[in-house]
Amino acid sequence: MSKVGVIMGSKSDLPVMQDAIDILKEFDIEVEVDIVSAHRTPDKLFNYGTNAHTRGIKVIIAGAGGAAHLPGMVASLSPLPVIGVPVKSSNSIDGWDSVLSILQMPGGVPVATVALNGAKNAGILAAQILGSADQSILDKILGYKEGLKAKVLDSAKDL
Amino acid sequence: MSKVGVIMGSKSDLPVMQDAIDILKEFDIEVEVDIVSAHRTPDKLFNYGTNAHTRGIKVIIAGAGGAAHLPGMVASLSPLPVIGVPVKSSNSIDGWDSVLSILQMPGGVPVATVALNGAKNAGILAAQILGSADQSILDKILGYKEGLKAKVLDSAKDL
Amino acid sequence: MSKVGVIMGSKSDLPVMQDAIDILKEFDIEVEVDIVSAHRTPDKLFNYGTNAHTRGIKVIIAGAGGAAHLPGMVASLSPLPVIGVPVKSSNSIDGWDSVLSILQMPGGVPVATVALNGAKNAGILAAQILGSADQSILDKILGYKEGLKAKVLDSAKDL
Amino acid sequence: MSKVGVIMGSKSDLPVMQDAIDILKEFDIEVEVDIVSAHRTPDKLFNYGTNAHTRGIKVIIAGAGGAAHLPGMVASLSPLPVIGVPVKSSNSIDGWDSVLSILQMPGGVPVATVALNGAKNAGILAAQILGSADQSILDKILGYKEGLKAKVLDSAKDL
Amino acid sequence: MSKVGVIMGSKSDLPVMQDAIDILKEFDIEVEVDIVSAHRTPDKLFNYGTNAHTRGIKVIIAGAGGAAHLPGMVASLSPLPVIGVPVKSSNSIDGWDSVLSILQMPGGVPVATVALNGAKNAGILAAQILGSADQSILDKILGYKEGLKAKVLDSAKDL
Amino acid sequence: MSKVGVIMGSKSDLPVMQDAIDILKEFDIEVEVDIVSAHRTPDKLFNYGTNAHTRGIKVIIAGAGGAAHLPGMVASLSPLPVIGVPVKSSNSIDGWDSVLSILQMPGGVPVATVALNGAKNAGILAAQILGSADQSILDKILGYKEGLKAKVLDSAKDL
Amino acid sequence: MSKVGVIMGSKSDLPVMQDAIDILKEFDIEVEVDIVSAHRTPDKLFNYGTNAHTRGIKVIIAGAGGAAHLPGMVASLSPLPVIGVPVKSSNSIDGWDSVLSILQMPGGVPVATVALNGAKNAGILAAQILGSADQSILDKILGYKEGLKAKVLDSAKDL
Amino acid sequence: MSKVGVIMGSKSDLPVMQDAIDILKEFDIEVEVDIVSAHRTPDKLFNYGTNAHTRGIKVIIAGAGGAAHLPGMVASLSPLPVIGVPVKSSNSIDGWDSVLSILQMPGGVPVATVALNGAKNAGILAAQILGSADQSILDKILGYKEGLKAKVLDSAKDL
Repeated sequence: MSKVGVIMGSKSDLPVMQDAIDILKEFDIEVEVDIVSAHRTPDKLFNYGTNAHTRGIKVIIAGAGGAAHLPGMVASLSPLPVIGVPVKSSNSIDGWDSVLSILQMPGGVPVATVALNGAKNAGILAAQILGSADQSILDKILGYKEGLKAKVLDSAKDL
Repeated sequence: MSKVGVIMGSKSDLPVMQDAIDILKEFDIEVEVDIVSAHRTPDKLFNYGTNAHTRGIKVIIAGAGGAAHLPGMVASLSPLPVIGVPVKSSNSIDGWDSVLSILQMPGGVPVATVALNGAKNAGILAAQILGSADQSILDKILGYKEGLKAKVLDSAKDL
Repeated sequence: MSKVGVIMGSKSDLPVMQDAIDILKEFDIEVEVDIVSAHRTPDKLFNYGTNAHTRGIKVIIAGAGGAAHLPGMVASLSPLPVIGVPVKSSNSIDGWDSVLSILQMPGGVPVATVALNGAKNAGILAAQILGSADQSILDKILGYKEGLKAKVLDSAKDL
Repeated sequence: MSKVGVIMGSKSDLPVMQDAIDILKEFDIEVEVDIVSAHRTPDKLFNYGTNAHTRGIKVIIAGAGGAAHLPGMVASLSPLPVIGVPVKSSNSIDGWDSVLSILQMPGGVPVATVALNGAKNAGILAAQILGSADQSILDKILGYKEGLKAKVLDSAKDL
Repeated sequence: MSKVGVIMGSKSDLPVMQDAIDILKEFDIEVEVDIVSAHRTPDKLFNYGTNAHTRGIKVIIAGAGGAAHLPGMVASLSPLPVIGVPVKSSNSIDGWDSVLSILQMPGGVPVATVALNGAKNAGILAAQILGSADQSILDKILGYKEGLKAKVLDSAKDL
Repeated sequence: MSKVGVIMGSKSDLPVMQDAIDILKEFDIEVEVDIVSAHRTPDKLFNYGTNAHTRGIKVIIAGAGGAAHLPGMVASLSPLPVIGVPVKSSNSIDGWDSVLSILQMPGGVPVATVALNGAKNAGILAAQILGSADQSILDKILGYKEGLKAKVLDSAKDL
Repeated sequence: MSKVGVIMGSKSDLPVMQDAIDILKEFDIEVEVDIVSAHRTPDKLFNYGTNAHTRGIKVIIAGAGGAAHLPGMVASLSPLPVIGVPVKSSNSIDGWDSVLSILQMPGGVPVATVALNGAKNAGILAAQILGSADQSILDKILGYKEGLKAKVLDSAKDL
Repeated sequence: MSKVGVIMGSKSDLPVMQDAIDILKEFDIEVEVDIVSAHRTPDKLFNYGTNAHTRGIKVIIAGAGGAAHLPGMVASLSPLPVIGVPVKSSNSIDGWDSVLSILQMPGGVPVATVALNGAKNAGILAAQILGSADQSILDKILGYKEGLKAKVLDSAKDL
């Protein structure tokens, strides 16, 4: 079965990254969660990035803050699509460092970057990537979008 | 056969967006190119976004500059993964407007954003997304990464 | 009778946008309020933008935050003057994304942008636009300006 | 007949501001052009701002760069809608000063701000403001939008 | 006797501007305080700026926030040295608008800008300007600097 | 006779700083020019800052770029008013470093900061400071302002 | 014995700078702490910078906020490696001023800059500098890195 | 003999990084130069970072641009002091991405960051680090500083 790997640089990123896990579960997509620090566990990073695609992972979501190297380094090591979540951690300068150090990857090694603290969107994007080749997931995405619409239309009625 | 749709807000974005087209062709992936302006051809935008997934498109790459609404609006309309390329167009404030108006999508509607003018990476990411479910493309990605490595190792010999 | 349409991307924008509604009511101008999300209700956006000028709306005020596409997309669809209010929403990077994705529209499709969270000024600007062709509203604006002046002069007396 | 007043802080702003004049002429709208410097001709500024609405001006377009006080000061003095054009002048810090000193007006005194160097859009916005109460101008705006669309559709054929 | 004029755009700026008043009183320099809003009381601004040097004012300190036009407009009208205090008001984008709209004056019309919320330094600078031609004030400045030094040296002893 | 001291961190700053020298000469004010580097000639900086007020200098203008410490360090050492000119030197990040490291002085030690590369305004401000206590210089400032006005009014005639 | 000198511009910087002191003590490295203000105690700054290397100091850590001149001025005076800690003090604009005025030193006078409020890393860097020539300290660094790794691996087990 | 390792992410960084090599040679310090790309040669990065300290390298200088992960990843792997040079490469957003992704390292893993394109200062800093334990190098630094001073004093004579 297809799996999405969700990793983060520190356990302190979990409150943000939980949104990715939750939405993926809502889509009935298997999630594997781990803490992998580019700066403190480089060996684990290497093993993770090199092997993920050999053990059923189809998409990787990586969240980190400040000088956030985890998403880019995993993208360097893995052939899989890597989604980067810039986390506005306590040591960040208003999130600009997190955003720029994930987004501005050099030619050859993309990271699919989502909004600051946008872990929920990272989860949806992972589902869309799987859905690109899986009609049942694509249908769930279509349904999810209908749900978003319905909520807005409802809220307009309350005005 | 799987197709990647590449769209841009203006023909003036083509010199940047050509990098996406070229790399996809290098990976033997079928590409469909069009100009769709969110602000000047909203009807075409609606048709494109609503129907793309029904006619064989698997991933959409959308490039735009300034107040760049094309990637986000296509993501609003389509269930497919949408990759956004912020273009540093002539009317942009150093690219910040292009980046932020593509990256900072609200919860529920992700855009997979790449670096400023990073159309080449958009193409590679599209290939990775297709490769997530297609071993032959995944193998090409692995080969491409070997090629990147070889070029760097060669350039180091010249020092 | 002339009407001003006030729309916003989410009900969470209402505390900010209420200032526009209040000042317009103070000027005895009819206001129609709705929630229209560019990213979650694109069909409603299209209907709204395409038809507003056919049912008595003379000016549109649109507020949104983050990658704020609502004002620009309504301006794409409608021939009416569109006033954009950048909202400093919870997912915004200090408001810069809201400001730039509303302000930096391409040539051909203007949005009259006001200050971050400046919904009150959006209301006044809408009144000025109507007042440009309606002497009684222009007189109210002149009176309003006298009131602003009087309050400052009073506050100076308290020093 | 309705007139649009176009003013700028320095003759060096004319190459940017000419776009506003040209598009207004394209719409057959009468334009009155002048140089009014907030910092070097404050008396002229006061006369202009205080009297513009008494002599047939319906909308004011004001362009300035750096610490750009002209649009805000005219808005302080006049009851008319004032459109501000941030000019990226030679003494500007990448245009940020021009944008922020025009956009961030306090509550009570709006300036309808357009994009950096967006004089063309200022002209279109002025036409839309007049068109809000003048069906013939509104029709021209609708026609102009059709023209924009046609050009994009044509350019797409060339691909 | 020499006087320093301290003005601010709104009574809400007083908590910040009080630091200028206090330090000037500490130097036994006469202070005249007023509220002058560039945007809401333009006539008062004109009278103030045009006449200040004729009624004993030697230096003007002007504080304002957001699109802060007060310091620059007073500098436009008065031949006196004008010190600008960028105030981080509630409607400011992290203070950047206040700083840039005061600092970036065009050639010919300087404003002596101090740090964001730096009203205390504005007061000291006004004293230094008077001290430039008044040995007794210069001596007070020298004494004040000795006091600053003594406090730091004392605090170092506590370590 | 009153003198203005103009110093800069490097000879490469002279093309920018010459504007201050020229305008002061236009006002018949004596100027003393020197190169004093905070980072490469700290002893000279100390001598300059400690003694300037004892040898007839009344105002100091200091220009520097990048991490620009010269204006602030001279202000630390001298009781005189110090005007800082942020220079957009080749090693500067768009001038932001020059501006912030001069402007954001701590409480107790002001630097009168002018616009990026605003050496001309630094010269005018120095003249205004001297003019604050010298009617003949004040009259020259008034005349200079009349000249500015005349040039703008003339340029408006050419339209 | 090798010593690290830790200085800061104000006692209010101590809560941030304490992290440097603590980690150095953890490495059993002798620390000498002092308050040296570039702007309020310039003489002490000169003495400190000129003499530090003559009395056993091997590395200097200097922390300051706002227009932070202490690290650069000490680097100007001392031949020792100087580590700069940008402090996000209360008068700072989101830390940008602190960062840029420490980082952007001109050619010839480096400051080894660490992250905003990154005093802990300044301490580790000082240890690494000493460890570069002292195997026992290098071994402690290696051990410290093992400890970081172990903590991350432990935290991953808790998921 | 002590060696400094100079690495860069791409051969295109060499024109900037050459300044570090040149100044180190001027100080008669042995330099080893290599190209190591964090994103394209991750294995080489791992070998380099893990082994540098075992083969005589005492300090590492690493330069990279955009999402610059090389300095931080080497610092993750090596116990040696790592100096990071943010390079303003062609794909950088005015250098901000390069600066922030090198500077803002998390607690535990410092990178000694120098100014944008400040490779010369990186070389001097490396010399200072070696000089911290080597009197002959320290003496060269002192001599170098005298040379800087002499050049400034000479240039002042030319005025």
